[in-house]
Amino acid sequence: MPIVVQKYGGSSLADAESIKRVARRIAETRKAGNDVVVAVSAMGDSTDELVDLAQDVSPVPPPRELDMLMTAGERISMALVAMAIHDLGISARSFTGSQAGVITDEAHGRAKIIDVTPGRITEALGKGHVVIVAGFQGVSQSTKEITTLGRGGTDTTAVALAAALGAQVCEIYTDVDGVFTADPRIVPRARKLDRISAEEMLELAASGSKVLHLRSVEYARRYDIPIHVRSSFTPKEGTIVSDQPGQQGPEGETVEAPIIAGVAHDLSEAKITVVGVPDTTGKAAQIFHAVAAAEINLDMIVQNVSATDTGLTDISFTLPKTDGQTAMEALQSIQEQVGFTGLQYDDQVGKLSLVGAGMRSNPGVSATFFRALADADVNIEMISTSEIRISVITRSELLDEAVRAVHTAFGLDSQDGEAVVYAGTGR
Amino acid sequence: MPIVVQKYGGSSLADAESIKRVARRIAETRKAGNDVVVAVSAMGDSTDELVDLAQDVSPVPPPRELDMLMTAGERISMALVAMAIHDLGISARSFTGSQAGVITDEAHGRAKIIDVTPGRITEALGKGHVVIVAGFQGVSQSTKEITTLGRGGTDTTAVALAAALGAQVCEIYTDVDGVFTADPRIVPRARKLDRISAEEMLELAASGSKVLHLRSVEYARRYDIPIHVRSSFTPKEGTIVSDQPGQQGPEGETVEAPIIAGVAHDLSEAKITVVGVPDTTGKAAQIFHAVAAAEINLDMIVQNVSATDTGLTDISFTLPKTDGQTAMEALQSIQEQVGFTGLQYDDQVGKLSLVGAGMRSNPGVSATFFRALADADVNIEMISTSEIRISVITRSELLDEAVRAVHTAFGLDSQDGEAVVYAGTGR
Repeated sequence: MPIVVQKYGGSSLADAESIKRVARRIAETRKAGNDVVVAVSAMGDSTDELVDLAQDVSPVPPPRELDMLMTAGERISMALVAMAIHDLGISARSFTGSQAGVITDEAHGRAKIIDVTPGRITEALGKGHVVIVAGFQGVSQSTKEITTLGRGGTDTTAVALAAALGAQVCEIYTDVDGVFTADPRIVPRARKLDRISAEEMLELAASGSKVLHLRSVEYARRYDIPIHVRSSFTPKEGTIVSDQPGQQGPEGETVEAPIIAGVAHDLSEAKITVVGVPDTTGKAAQIFHAVAAAEINLDMIVQNVSATDTGLTDISFTLPKTDGQTAMEALQSIQEQVGFTGLQYDDQVGKLSLVGAGMRSNPGVSATFFRALADADVNIEMISTSEIRISVITRSELLDEAVRAVHTAFGLDSQDGEAVVYAGTGR
Repeated sequence: MPIVVQKYGGSSLADAESIKRVARRIAETRKAGNDVVVAVSAMGDSTDELVDLAQDVSPVPPPRELDMLMTAGERISMALVAMAIHDLGISARSFTGSQAGVITDEAHGRAKIIDVTPGRITEALGKGHVVIVAGFQGVSQSTKEITTLGRGGTDTTAVALAAALGAQVCEIYTDVDGVFTADPRIVPRARKLDRISAEEMLELAASGSKVLHLRSVEYARRYDIPIHVRSSFTPKEGTIVSDQPGQQGPEGETVEAPIIAGVAHDLSEAKITVVGVPDTTGKAAQIFHAVAAAEINLDMIVQNVSATDTGLTDISFTLPKTDGQTAMEALQSIQEQVGFTGLQYDDQVGKLSLVGAGMRSNPGVSATFFRALADADVNIEMISTSEIRISVITRSELLDEAVRAVHTAFGLDSQDGEAVVYAGTGR
């Protein structure tokens, strides 16, 4: 029997009614002749409520205990989903991450899955049960401690289970209809993509698209698992994320991949400028060493050309706003040693990224891109590129207009004014 | 280092402030030079909230999944308590019932502990950690499924841990000061007992006293573990429950055990009367077989003397009100076969029990008891006795007055009008 893995996020499991709707969906998949394994997140905002409780008890709770606490959320939702399925006359068994064999490293709060040993799952499937697994959690290999995977963890749980079980597809149910050419809240004429390559999806996720978590896409790509992103609120087909050869179109012809997959935007980054850095060997290395030692991941980096006379240069980089304070403190501590003049912190920046595998063979893409931004009077502060992506930093208040301009310039606007809903996917 | 096991119920863990207070208490015990192992219940009413959620999703949830759901409550409280202790500068580790080695049978919702294998606990104690264990839960020996122990389960977890670890004492923290000679809400002059034998405590718990759960007392008695029942809201000494030889009094003399330990009452039972049963061999057996087949535990049973002419008799028994409907249905189904005339269901009854090990050697106790009830105009409907207990059934509206009359008649009233608080202990 083919195995289908499904993932339901917190917004699809907000209350008893939502849980019953999800149960009906799972029951239909089972009745259609599939073995079904489901990864669930905690209900609605319950994870945030647990974090608030922890904060009330201890300002800096120990990570081991925080993980112990947080995993209660998925335990509640998995049991309720199993009950609701049972109520439809279909047998179901819920398993914690540990019981399901989700083995991780020891990094509490941001553990990585290193193995899945799904013995109890396959045994339960063999007995005809639907299997519900708590997402976002696992057990560490060496210490047997309970761990959590961090934001987006349940997507990763689902993909890892699909890989370990040899599933046909991993269906990620969310509150949007699929992956869009841009965020429909900003671009009302954004179109849902029927298909996108895992490579492109990786770039979109890394560039601010929230629909799938980056690590789950990396995992799916590595193990060649097709992901089907779709809405838990409608029966419509969503978006297939896969590097496997393109499917056949309705008339039997091979569907040609479009040049551009989509436009992503990101308001979660800040820009730090280190002003007046002595333009001598090793100064940049000192700066980036200090930031790296604080475990901060930088995104884009620009070093201005040194002004002829001063012998000084400016170095700018972007980083997550949440790391801003830590980075500033790390830099202040080395100011004397490096000898730079000052620091500027700017959180009014936005990032716009154009993603498409077709860029490789279409040299005109960047010309069209920069022309569209110029015509919309959008000033560009930083640029970075990969083989299939161009990203720019602009003023944050210009970002929406910039996204619309680029979307239109590449012919991505849909011709019908379909109303779509687009929101975060929980974790 | 001596090991102290402590138990905190839901009412002692109602919110972040309560959890911090409990943490300070645990930290003091640790600083006094003890290894400390703590069993915790779920916070406040959170178990009831989880049950409500389950009911919203499925009217008759499968017991396995209900246990999976319910155990989330203790997982939350144990992690929060560990965090709060950590915040006081003392290292703490929380463990689920399964991790702590609480091995049970397979009876979901009412599992019995059959073994405790506390390897991870002793290892953590050896490393200097305070250990917090989720009460009320375990893992089944054969199927490795998560189980719960039923009402009062955390008391039993604490006592079982104390036995397995060879603890010096098991401290049960609750919202009352200890075990009283009667419920102070009914008898304002009830006195706190400094000491009570496990045998007497068993009879009190079986007769309606809520301060300790029956099974935990059975367990403590079997393994000879002293229990110290005390309030988590004051530093005062509570009540020692132990069959071990009485302690020395303040002047060095041995404290003599009083004749009577206390008066318990119970409003949770109903009375069923099977009317007009043919007075021939085997009819009573048919009736009690039907009730036993429905898994109902009867308490007191009375068969009236057969009236000379009719050849018919009445059989009355008491049982938990919660089992009333099931019992009535079981009896209706055998009415034709047994040939009785009818059934009466009466839930306006109350049970009063006098408990004291001194009854054995004091033949005047029952005379004093029945005289006190007669003087208070309390009519007696049923009587049952054990070696150290007399129980009677009366009209429920007479029960409070009856308890006060008996309490006074046995000289149990305290001479000072100390105000006490007395309430349920969670589970």
